[in-house]
Amino acid sequence: MSEGEDQVRVVPVILSGGVGARLWPLSRAARPKQMLDLTGGGTMLALTAARVADPGLFAAPIVVAGADQAEAIMAELGRLGALILEPAARNTAPAIALAALAADPDELLLVLPSDHLVADPSGFGAAVRAGLPFAKDGWIVTFGMKAERAETGYGYIERGAALADGVFAAARFVEKPDAARAAAFVAGGRHDWNGGIFLMRAGAYLDALRAHAPAMMDAAETAMADARREGVLIHPDAAAFRASPAQSIDYAVMEKAERIAVVPADVGWSDVGSWQALHDVSARDADGNAVVGEAILIDARGNLIRSDGPLVTAIGVENLVIVATADAVLVVPRDQCQRVKEAVDRLKQEGRDQWT
Amino acid sequence: MSEGEDQVRVVPVILSGGVGARLWPLSRAARPKQMLDLTGGGTMLALTAARVADPGLFAAPIVVAGADQAEAIMAELGRLGALILEPAARNTAPAIALAALAADPDELLLVLPSDHLVADPSGFGAAVRAGLPFAKDGWIVTFGMKAERAETGYGYIERGAALADGVFAAARFVEKPDAARAAAFVAGGRHDWNGGIFLMRAGAYLDALRAHAPAMMDAAETAMADARREGVLIHPDAAAFRASPAQSIDYAVMEKAERIAVVPADVGWSDVGSWQALHDVSARDADGNAVVGEAILIDARGNLIRSDGPLVTAIGVENLVIVATADAVLVVPRDQCQRVKEAVDRLKQEGRDQWT
Repeated sequence: MSEGEDQVRVVPVILSGGVGARLWPLSRAARPKQMLDLTGGGTMLALTAARVADPGLFAAPIVVAGADQAEAIMAELGRLGALILEPAARNTAPAIALAALAADPDELLLVLPSDHLVADPSGFGAAVRAGLPFAKDGWIVTFGMKAERAETGYGYIERGAALADGVFAAARFVEKPDAARAAAFVAGGRHDWNGGIFLMRAGAYLDALRAHAPAMMDAAETAMADARREGVLIHPDAAAFRASPAQSIDYAVMEKAERIAVVPADVGWSDVGSWQALHDVSARDADGNAVVGEAILIDARGNLIRSDGPLVTAIGVENLVIVATADAVLVVPRDQCQRVKEAVDRLKQEGRDQWT
Repeated sequence: MSEGEDQVRVVPVILSGGVGARLWPLSRAARPKQMLDLTGGGTMLALTAARVADPGLFAAPIVVAGADQAEAIMAELGRLGALILEPAARNTAPAIALAALAADPDELLLVLPSDHLVADPSGFGAAVRAGLPFAKDGWIVTFGMKAERAETGYGYIERGAALADGVFAAARFVEKPDAARAAAFVAGGRHDWNGGIFLMRAGAYLDALRAHAPAMMDAAETAMADARREGVLIHPDAAAFRASPAQSIDYAVMEKAERIAVVPADVGWSDVGSWQALHDVSARDADGNAVVGEAILIDARGNLIRSDGPLVTAIGVENLVIVATADAVLVVPRDQCQRVKEAVDRLKQEGRDQWT
């Protein structure tokens, strides 16, 4: 491999700090969503790593995760450049800062959530390649996931002027529009979903953070300067990192920085952010049931049924989510599955930690 | 106690041979319905025994059960006259014959299922006392449970001429009428549900059986003549008993015999023959949910929720039965809960015996 090709290798930064409470009771604090095998193809984390495993394009990943996930992540990932263990959850902007500080300023980082699905990995690779020249040139490149419906739970990116074939300046970020606005976005064809995937030089991100969120930058710098390192593990200084404001990269950087590009990517993306979303991307039987685990279905239609062990028997029910683990069962209509969070909140309030 | 009072003591005959598959997955072959605590007051068997525990009226019971239930029954019942272990299931008429042959011909037997509920035990006792003079006089006395709705799954008894205050000759037995006929029965006020409870001299029953089902009588007599006895346990001869036809007492005797009386008894009877029936007799919250076990309910109405361990979370669902055990979960609309049997049948067909 020539030195020229080496220079385009991208360091994946996999963000693995979330819990994914909306997939409760399968997801738990001790077994977050990215550690679940939702598709039968491996954990979300392993699928994410596989998506950026091409050695011609990608270096070994940097993973940023909660300290309690260290063992699980090391067991899951064969190839690991660094594992940065966050002393506390401070949302995505500080987490990415830790990774950027662990890299060389000129290295290209591809930031990606650990718990999303992409049905077309080669299309995804092509989108990354399309963004490379702009990232090398100092742009922060986002990837616009095709907006397939008027989803109000996502952020949207509006395309501006074309910069190259399939690459646009990002005109605007809009977080969680109302239904009418979301419908207008989908109809207009100039908006994509913000999938939380970013490509940029480490230095470009840190420059933007220093400009728009200096307290966050200071906290991350101190935390990494005082970090404890053992092998691939990096333990940022806890007191310093805890002092950081908690903000998303979208809010802290993307909505404020100049030179943001967007590469539209119709790659079958899903954040699998709810049981409904999992039903959407799952294989279904002739009656529209998506079933994983031992189950008996009699006159049942449109259900998502998922068991980690118990036999689930569903008779005469439609459009339900039924999830069974060894210690918990959830039953909720598919179109109300966002309310699972209410149950988790109640368990936390009541201190029933064995189930959270 | 005078000799005169001793003579009216009644021997309860508790039939404990059934499985109650309609309460699956709580009921199993190894843990039949009568061994479940459905009300929080003890197992159905223990409640049944308590109903006939008044020593002024009742002797120690004879229990007829499957051989695999011997240990559980002996652990459950402190007072046990005899435990007859059926070598095979042959329905109620042969089971009662075994008990009648274990008793003296002049003893009064009160036959009762082990898995029904009676909300008013003292009313039940009064009904039994009302039937005593007729049973002593050779009548077979049945008890007419108040027909509270046009149930098509039950048998009905039509009252004929009054024999005494609150005691009637039974004019007719009607098994499982259609809906129109059941509605007419309820409206007419002359029909009661057949609760499967009978009071009679042992000899009177055996005489009727000999007259109307001689093959059954022969099989039971041989089985008991060749029985093996150890303490309270009686093991009827297996080959002889297996040779018996399998018929209910209703079909083999009640629909054919003369001198059948009926004592109407409005005593809050339920056969708890389905999850719907359990919902009917259970305490319910302000939203109509009957809940036993760990559960979180959010915007849920009219459900029966029952857990033997797992936390059940029900969000936005109405009129469902949700039952969770360590190894199985059932979800079915309350008004379709009779279909549980279809699931059990399928499990048996598929040889998935761990769940039956």
